[in-house]
Amino acid sequence: MPDLMTTIEETADRVTVALDALLPSREGPEERLISAMRYAALGPGKRIRPFLVTQCGSLLGASQRGLLRTACAVECIHAYSLIHDDLPCMDDDNMRRGRPTVHRAYDEATAVLAGDALQASAYEILAGVDTHPSGVVRSLLIQRLAEAAGARGMVGGQMIDMAAAGHDEDIGLITRLQRMKTGALISFSAEAPVILAEAGEEARIALDGYAHDLGLIYQIVDDLLDAEGAEDETGKAVGKDAGQGKATFVSILGADGARDRAQRLAEQAKAHLAGFGEEADLLRGVVDYVLDRRS
Amino acid sequence: MPDLMTTIEETADRVTVALDALLPSREGPEERLISAMRYAALGPGKRIRPFLVTQCGSLLGASQRGLLRTACAVECIHAYSLIHDDLPCMDDDNMRRGRPTVHRAYDEATAVLAGDALQASAYEILAGVDTHPSGVVRSLLIQRLAEAAGARGMVGGQMIDMAAAGHDEDIGLITRLQRMKTGALISFSAEAPVILAEAGEEARIALDGYAHDLGLIYQIVDDLLDAEGAEDETGKAVGKDAGQGKATFVSILGADGARDRAQRLAEQAKAHLAGFGEEADLLRGVVDYVLDRRS
Repeated sequence: MPDLMTTIEETADRVTVALDALLPSREGPEERLISAMRYAALGPGKRIRPFLVTQCGSLLGASQRGLLRTACAVECIHAYSLIHDDLPCMDDDNMRRGRPTVHRAYDEATAVLAGDALQASAYEILAGVDTHPSGVVRSLLIQRLAEAAGARGMVGGQMIDMAAAGHDEDIGLITRLQRMKTGALISFSAEAPVILAEAGEEARIALDGYAHDLGLIYQIVDDLLDAEGAEDETGKAVGKDAGQGKATFVSILGADGARDRAQRLAEQAKAHLAGFGEEADLLRGVVDYVLDRRS
Repeated sequence: MPDLMTTIEETADRVTVALDALLPSREGPEERLISAMRYAALGPGKRIRPFLVTQCGSLLGASQRGLLRTACAVECIHAYSLIHDDLPCMDDDNMRRGRPTVHRAYDEATAVLAGDALQASAYEILAGVDTHPSGVVRSLLIQRLAEAAGARGMVGGQMIDMAAAGHDEDIGLITRLQRMKTGALISFSAEAPVILAEAGEEARIALDGYAHDLGLIYQIVDDLLDAEGAEDETGKAVGKDAGQGKATFVSILGADGARDRAQRLAEQAKAHLAGFGEEADLLRGVVDYVLDRRS
């Protein structure tokens, strides 16, 4: 099988090149806005969600063109959510991926607007595939992305996360909010290829279970990195959750308990792929990649 | 013809009832977010954009169901843009339509997230029409709405408006930024019915010209109300543009010049409707309504 790291990097490059062409160019008096959008969306990043979209899609035989546009749309939503999450009135972060956050590199108003415009770009990109996939498939993709990104998904999860700071919360609420905050978009990244390929129930259930577990691993490792990671490795401030008295997987389960939980979820995620052969080896590999990541 | 004010109010009521059913209900730990979304989207408002959608659509024989969903989607985008425009880092407004703005009634983080979630709702609503209109028509609607709302439309216009504060600007730039900031969504409100009805070029050109002029009148009157209106009538703070040294139609043309310009645009807007008979009388009437409004 192709090397995992090479494939992750190649996918990231393809998506960055495609997004560079799809996002508006720096022209006109709105140049500063577009510059901020590009700073956020085209900067460094692992592009795990685009990787999921393209890998799940290749597994199911979906068209590369539809997958690439979908991956770009997902990345726009992810980039916009990071800009807004970093704002002073939200998590108030100065650094992200080793660079100043958008409101630090530009200003707060530009950051709000760049996030807003990137959200619009996501739907524009998804709606703009010309002949394939069909209009019905495209509408369904857009509907599911909007659900994943909206009040019952990503944004709702962020809201609960803000409200949870400083409160004692149980593992059920934390799991639910993380399923919304980061899980919904990761799940969409595995569901979109199923929609694009018009694949059957069996594939849908397998990839949904896989993405569900992967999303939780991702968040548990995020919490572990915040609790134990080094700022120069993670590229952002650490120790913030404890500083804010925020309930996380680590504050509730302890670091060892959280690591155990992530390990079990990793086995479970791979078990969901049992129906696939070696063509799913990269999806299996990315589970360990997410589990072992240092940033 | 039916009375203009009655029709405006009936349309506003229909859209509010439909939106009430389409927006998520206040349940779960994300209740505060949903409450803020509903506060913004279901509160008082003239619903001029929904009126345009439904009136232009009736003129062209588009399906009422598609028009109503489209009107709701446009209103979600409008409501989200007001929430974000009112934020402290943007226009920093405390009152809107006679009530505290969302970040005053809730808090800043909730206001950012409620705007974000309402934008997602707009696309979810537009994508979610089940059988009619067709998938291709729906995709085109979504693409055009995202363009109107994004970096080259509404959000881009807001960015230029922020950057223009305190600078000497000419009438060309002001016209361009207002065409983007408020004009793009008003133009979409007249274009969407053309797409839904699959109407011809003639109707498209007529309604596009009409909406173009109406959008500028709307903004000129906004500037006049800010310069000369009373806070208890407009329901928001006045005199803000001059206080911020903001270039507006009034600061450049003077109040009399701005009124003359709006008057000429009103005649021009009606001239675009010359190809329609009395079935367009309400669209003609709304020109004077926008011209003469006091809030």
